[in-house]
Formats: sequence, structure tokens, C-alpha cells
Amino acid sequence: MYEVEVKVRADHEAVEAALDAAGAEFVDSVVQADTYYDAPHRDFAETDEALRIRRERDLESDDAGGEDETERETAKITYKGPLLEAESKSREEHETAVADGEAAAGVFDGLGFEPAATVRKERAHYRLDGYTVTLDSVDGLGEFVEVETETEDDDIEAAREGARAVLDDLGLDPAEQIRTSYLGLLLDGDAGE
Amino acid sequence: MYEVEVKVRADHEAVEAALDAAGAEFVDSVVQADTYYDAPHRDFAETDEALRIRRERDLESDDAGGEDETERETAKITYKGPLLEAESKSREEHETAVADGEAAAGVFDGLGFEPAATVRKERAHYRLDGYTVTLDSVDGLGEFVEVETETEDDDIEAAREGARAVLDDLGLDPAEQIRTSYLGLLLDGDAGE
Repeated sequence: MYEVEVKVRADHEAVEAALDAAGAEFVDSVVQADTYYDAPHRDFAETDEALRIRRERDLESDDAGGEDETERETAKITYKGPLLEAESKSREEHETAVADGEAAAGVFDGLGFEPAATVRKERAHYRLDGYTVTLDSVDGLGEFVEVETETEDDDIEAAREGARAVLDDLGLDPAEQIRTSYLGLLLDGDAGE
Repeated sequence: MYEVEVKVRADHEAVEAALDAAGAEFVDSVVQADTYYDAPHRDFAETDEALRIRRERDLESDDAGGEDETERETAKITYKGPLLEAESKSREEHETAVADGEAAAGVFDGLGFEPAATVRKERAHYRLDGYTVTLDSVDGLGEFVEVETETEDDDIEAAREGARAVLDDLGLDPAEQIRTSYLGLLLDGDAGE
């Protein structure tokens, strides 16, 4: 399975109205803090690898009070290897949930890995026409909309076309696609509008 | 809190009878596989650090069949830093449960860490006089008994005395204490009797 994803800058207010009009289904809303690490023995920018700890909290549960809120915070560690094949953008990836994000950070710190940057964002997920539409508000960068789906090897082009059509339906211009990751934009100093 | 631990080689059959006679309470029985990693950028033998993935399975659940068994397998990652203070044997330690032990191994493999050795053992835990008595059958090494407890800073010597008294009650000789870890014994080629 491949992930097809198209991302553009977009003001959320207009997109929310368009999602509503199109009958999109709201899924959930979360806060994510992704900390990316530098390695002590390799330059990840050169090797095109990434080590990340993602902490996520369900926004809907904010009202539930202190203890519940903490229990709903989840953390994951993810390693992404170099691109294996440029065309499909496939890469080795290993990911697991961890019970204690702070302890996981302690493990990597102890081993000599250092936090390089943290990307913080609020994400609201919607379902529309078999696609996931994500409204991201990224600290320091601004508002974005991502349209994505998973597909088989031989349907990538069709899935990409479909994602562009969804953007078009939401009043957005697929030609304004941004291919740089949020981490890349932050490191490039590409501030929000 | 400090962990006080005394370990000796001992044939389990006699110890089980002694535990029974002393009224010890059986707690649980598990299988553990501990994989220790070499780092790509440091010699852990020199720096006195350790990186470990522990996979544990409840032995009692063996009868429950395939699916349940898998669900009861748990995994943890642990980093142990160098000794901070020789006297108390205190060191920096970070540990968290992970949902997927294979994925955690994939993360470390991807980062260039390599499995150095795996210690496999069956452990049966008992409670006796405020101490945990553990009967370990270690693959390639043989049978051991550990007596341990946690204690405050200023009670370490009393706790150690108590642990030796428990060994004595079980018909074992505290003077035969082994201070080398199972990993150390395995790497030393110290085969079981």
C-alpha cells in the first residue's frame, strides 16, 4: 500500500464551510507535538533518515479534567529510513506506540541523540469521498489542508487525481501543492502568512 | 529507592520445597528474552551503558491458545547509563513499555544498533518476608535464585542482611553470591553446571 497525499496552504474557515456543504464527516481533532532528533553518528539531513517521537492528545477530551486528559495522551516512536525508490517514495519505516513518551525521550537522550526541532500542530480529520481531509494549524507556519488516501501500487496516479479533485471541490487549487514537510518548512524559516 | 539484590546458583527443586515449607506466596511465572544492543558510535562495554529490548510472556497463559498468547506478550525498551556513584550502584535509567517489540527492534536496527546477545530465561516469582524470591532458569547458564527488595537510602545494609537471611532460610549460602549479570556470564562463556 502507498500513501498518496496532497497538501496546500489554506485558510480553514472557508474550507470548513466547504466540507460542511460537501457532506464531509468529522472524525476527530488532536494536538500533536513531533520531536525530531539529530543522531550522534550520522547526519540525517544527508542520509535522509528521521527519528521522531510523536506525542498526541485528543482535543475532544480537554473538558474531562486533569487525570483523564493525561491518560488520553499517547506517544509513538518512528524511524524512517532513506528513500528506497524515488518514484514511489517508498522507505523503510518502523513505528510503535510507547507507554511513556518522556522515558522514550530519555532513552534517546541517553544514547546521545539530540532534539533538533519540534513541530506542534492541531489536526482536525474529516472523511470525504474515500479520502481523509486534514486541517492542520502548525505553530509558526500557519494553516494547511492535506488530502490523502492509501492505494495499491498500480492505482497511484488515479488516487492522486482523486485527491486533486477533492481539493478542487473544496475551493482549493491543487497546483499550489507544497511538497516540503512541516519540519522542512520550519527549518527553512518559511513562516505563516 | 534502591534495589538490593543477592543472587546465587541453586538447584530449583530443593528451593521450591523450602519456599513451600516457609509459606512463600507464588506470584507469577514468565518467560523473558532480553536482547542487548551494541551502539554504532560508542563501545558500551567501555562506557558501561546498556540498551535492551525485553520481551516477556506470561507462562500461565500458555493454555489460552494462539491469539490470547500473543496479546499477553509485552515488550519494554530500557536504557541504562554509566554508574553515577560506585557505592550505591545508582545509574540513570529510562524504561518504557512499547506496543510492538519487533517495531522497536526495527527502529534500533535502522539507527545502526546491532543485537549483541540475547538472554532467555524462565522466571518464577515468590513473595517471602517482604522480599521477592525469583527462580531463574537461564538458557545456557542454568538455575539461579535471586532475593531482592527495594529500600530507602539509609536502610541498604539492613536490607542486604535481610536478603542474606532469606537465602539462608532457603538452605542457600549467601557467601556464594554472584555479582555478574546473566549477560556478563553469557559473554564470559560461564556455562551451566
